[in-house]
Amino acid sequence: MRAGVVQFGPVFGDVAGNMDRVLALLEPEDAELFVLPELALSGYLFESRAEAEALAQKADGAEFDALATLARDKGATIVLGFAEQAEEGLFNSSLMLTPDGRREVYRKVQLFYKEREVFLPGDMPPSVCDVAGVRLGMMICFDWIYPEVARSLALAGADILCHGSNLVLPYCPDAMVTRSIENRVFSMTANRIGSEARAGEDLAFIGMSGIVSPKGDILARAGTDTEEVLVVDIDPAAARNKAVTPYNDILNDRRPDIYRLG
Amino acid sequence: MRAGVVQFGPVFGDVAGNMDRVLALLEPEDAELFVLPELALSGYLFESRAEAEALAQKADGAEFDALATLARDKGATIVLGFAEQAEEGLFNSSLMLTPDGRREVYRKVQLFYKEREVFLPGDMPPSVCDVAGVRLGMMICFDWIYPEVARSLALAGADILCHGSNLVLPYCPDAMVTRSIENRVFSMTANRIGSEARAGEDLAFIGMSGIVSPKGDILARAGTDTEEVLVVDIDPAAARNKAVTPYNDILNDRRPDIYRLG
Repeated sequence: MRAGVVQFGPVFGDVAGNMDRVLALLEPEDAELFVLPELALSGYLFESRAEAEALAQKADGAEFDALATLARDKGATIVLGFAEQAEEGLFNSSLMLTPDGRREVYRKVQLFYKEREVFLPGDMPPSVCDVAGVRLGMMICFDWIYPEVARSLALAGADILCHGSNLVLPYCPDAMVTRSIENRVFSMTANRIGSEARAGEDLAFIGMSGIVSPKGDILARAGTDTEEVLVVDIDPAAARNKAVTPYNDILNDRRPDIYRLG
Repeated sequence: MRAGVVQFGPVFGDVAGNMDRVLALLEPEDAELFVLPELALSGYLFESRAEAEALAQKADGAEFDALATLARDKGATIVLGFAEQAEEGLFNSSLMLTPDGRREVYRKVQLFYKEREVFLPGDMPPSVCDVAGVRLGMMICFDWIYPEVARSLALAGADILCHGSNLVLPYCPDAMVTRSIENRVFSMTANRIGSEARAGEDLAFIGMSGIVSPKGDILARAGTDTEEVLVVDIDPAAARNKAVTPYNDILNDRRPDIYRLG
């Protein structure tokens, strides 16, 4: 299958403009899976929860209808981050739009820095969506630093980690190679570019979106500040082979009887 | 404190000669902690379990007396890998010799490749030894690919991961940066150099021993084929600060209620 990460710089507060940009970036591309950055419609640095709420969407909102139509027409699954207005409150979420019209949601578990002043922490276990036989897991940005998140997805059967991000620390691109190796899964990190100076902060996002194979090969790596759509051919079945060596099955060899994970 | 990794190439089967080499390498050095490679006395590629048994030691064996004396005289803790002949059977183990005369043992949990034809898998949870207020955890080589091992040590309070290795795959040096970051601990990987061609195999060891800070800084990195003792000054208390940001405590922010780790 063809799978791509979309790296661009959302403009803070311009939900309609950012959606137009997303649609324009995807329109000429051909793939069965696209992953886009965290909070791709709203931007990142909110002054307050009220400001975030004003820029939030519901997962079933009409704002996503054009993207859902694009998913259907292209036969592509599209994953992008958004500020989710849910009944329970506001979440930093990822939405998966499938060609057959499903809208799956993941809510970021490991909130970074001041995000917890704005968002509720994710309240649902990482789960996997089967799309035409390919098992897709979602995680968001700082979830990368917790091996438990990627591991939970791998144990749930994920072939591909769909990882939308707004990375500011430099460590994640290398760490996702480790996440892929230690779980023998593909990882697709779509990061944003640009910077935001507001709400008393000044953050520069690092770009470097990437796609990594289950063996840790970097199949694609974006630049630090360039708008890019990187599409590669992958065989998702490669993630079903968990044999690091003929004697080592990466998941079956785990020793929960020995670990002390509190 | 001063802490060092010792990178050298054990000669297969020459237990006495390898111990002499270890003593000679440590003699001129000054540090409070030394980490040496996996199976530093026996070599790695055994033809059979019987051959490994012939090259094994007991943790309280007289073979370690000179090293224990060196530990006492230098005021240094010394960690090295050995084939352990225990009552339960043969283990791929790590021995910690402390200045006050203790001998602590860790038995490799995640056996690599054909090791399982020779050794029993580790039967004890990863644990931490307090040496003069510094909390030392041991892990061995392929344990690196299982985030659960380093995590178990960090949750047990480890400040420093003492990681003796015989690495042949290229991924571990980068992965240990991730292990340090995700647990905010020091990691000290002492790898061997050279190669072994026997028992139907031909393995080249990658060297690249390293010391990594809790923030992921590479404090020391050895070459791929050079005998080296790398000593750095570290403040082990830095590993007690688990704040990735003022809002993020790397261990307390874990969400065992959400993870699905089987």
